[in-house]
Amino acid sequence: MEKARKPHILVCNDDGIEGEGIHALAAAMKKIGNVTVVAPAEPHSGMSHAMTLGLPLRIRKFSRNGRFFGYTVSGTPVDCIKVALSHILPTRPDLIVSGINYGSNTATNTLYSGTVAAALEGAIQGITSLAFSLATYEHADFTYAGKFARKLAKKVLHEGLPPDTVLSVNIPNLPEAEIAGIVITEQGSSRWEEDAIERNDMYGNPYYWLNGTLQLLDNDMRKDEFAVRRNYVAVTPLSCDFTNHAYIGTLEQWNLQK
Amino acid sequence: MEKARKPHILVCNDDGIEGEGIHALAAAMKKIGNVTVVAPAEPHSGMSHAMTLGLPLRIRKFSRNGRFFGYTVSGTPVDCIKVALSHILPTRPDLIVSGINYGSNTATNTLYSGTVAAALEGAIQGITSLAFSLATYEHADFTYAGKFARKLAKKVLHEGLPPDTVLSVNIPNLPEAEIAGIVITEQGSSRWEEDAIERNDMYGNPYYWLNGTLQLLDNDMRKDEFAVRRNYVAVTPLSCDFTNHAYIGTLEQWNLQK
Repeated sequence: MEKARKPHILVCNDDGIEGEGIHALAAAMKKIGNVTVVAPAEPHSGMSHAMTLGLPLRIRKFSRNGRFFGYTVSGTPVDCIKVALSHILPTRPDLIVSGINYGSNTATNTLYSGTVAAALEGAIQGITSLAFSLATYEHADFTYAGKFARKLAKKVLHEGLPPDTVLSVNIPNLPEAEIAGIVITEQGSSRWEEDAIERNDMYGNPYYWLNGTLQLLDNDMRKDEFAVRRNYVAVTPLSCDFTNHAYIGTLEQWNLQK
Repeated sequence: MEKARKPHILVCNDDGIEGEGIHALAAAMKKIGNVTVVAPAEPHSGMSHAMTLGLPLRIRKFSRNGRFFGYTVSGTPVDCIKVALSHILPTRPDLIVSGINYGSNTATNTLYSGTVAAALEGAIQGITSLAFSLATYEHADFTYAGKFARKLAKKVLHEGLPPDTVLSVNIPNLPEAEIAGIVITEQGSSRWEEDAIERNDMYGNPYYWLNGTLQLLDNDMRKDEFAVRRNYVAVTPLSCDFTNHAYIGTLEQWNLQK
């Protein structure tokens, strides 16, 4: 009689393999499965679904505290997923988890996020995938986030997800006792307040640096950023199909002729 | 009595300002409006919605055939939109058009495309935006594509688009007489056939190069890649809201407790 096989879990992120968030996520996943870590060698925040097309990629082994931790890929989060599946993992994983990201990936940040993109790439490849983000840039405590990630991973390994769909999870940076609850959310409409600032270099020539903070434009508990700011864990199902299906009927009435 | 003001149109792409496609698109738009070109200094195919967060950006003027053509930004297509709106254009444009890209941006390529991402960034900023791609990598003839882009831009300037929605247009590389028609499509499920190839460098060490061709997995004229391969122009409405709304009810029944 065959015993239940432990699930094989691929762990990735966009902050790079040295990040504390991926360490916490890998530790959480090791309690429920066999884990392979494949992550960018360098931080790749804001890389979205970018791929490296014009340069070769290298795979290297990476140790943490003197022990093998995982593999680095000299590219983006999406590169990591592609190379992991084609050249690192001997078999397809049962689950891909991405994170735990520093900073929420809610609202329009969903489009910029390499953490979310790694999960979406997993879904494109037909693998159940989750993205986790902690809503802080400092004093991060991954204790509860890791625990919730483990719980959700177990649930998702059991329930599965629809095709082309991932769950993007945003978690407040709080101890468990202060978490208000779990809520299923939609991607909100909150936007960056400011996009680029101008400075002058030492020769007096201007340069521009992208810079922005997410301005809360939602006031509804069903929106991801609003919920996470109210101390709720926000679980948002995202699709790789970007089609605005509801608008197709209207467009058809435009009667575009060639 | 005020005369109808000519629309102000921002033109961007992901192939870089030297590309022939952006030249064709700018020429087409100049027939209906006042055009500003802001494009990456270098090719940025496959950059998706990536932003440059860790480096400063430079804006430079660019001439073509001895005449001022537009501005380059030393970053990604999304960087171009952000910097154009915050520091190059004196007022918000009426329309953003992106392309004309070499190669179709259909199916899962939608997620990888910098051309599409530039348009989505326009929509995030509340500006009507269109993306154009020509379904070829060689012997490109932008004649019909430019003509159709102009026609659609006029239509969209009149009709508008819903919030957070862009049109992504994929055009066969054919003379107008061979275009079968215009069809409103959905993002299809076609995927890359192969993701990364392994080679050895001159020291015998392996490197990996992302590589793939879109394998047609749809057989329905309502899917973008299928339609364009049947010589139709495929017009797909895409949304910046990636939420899988249909799945929220199911997820709520999971009763995730904290």
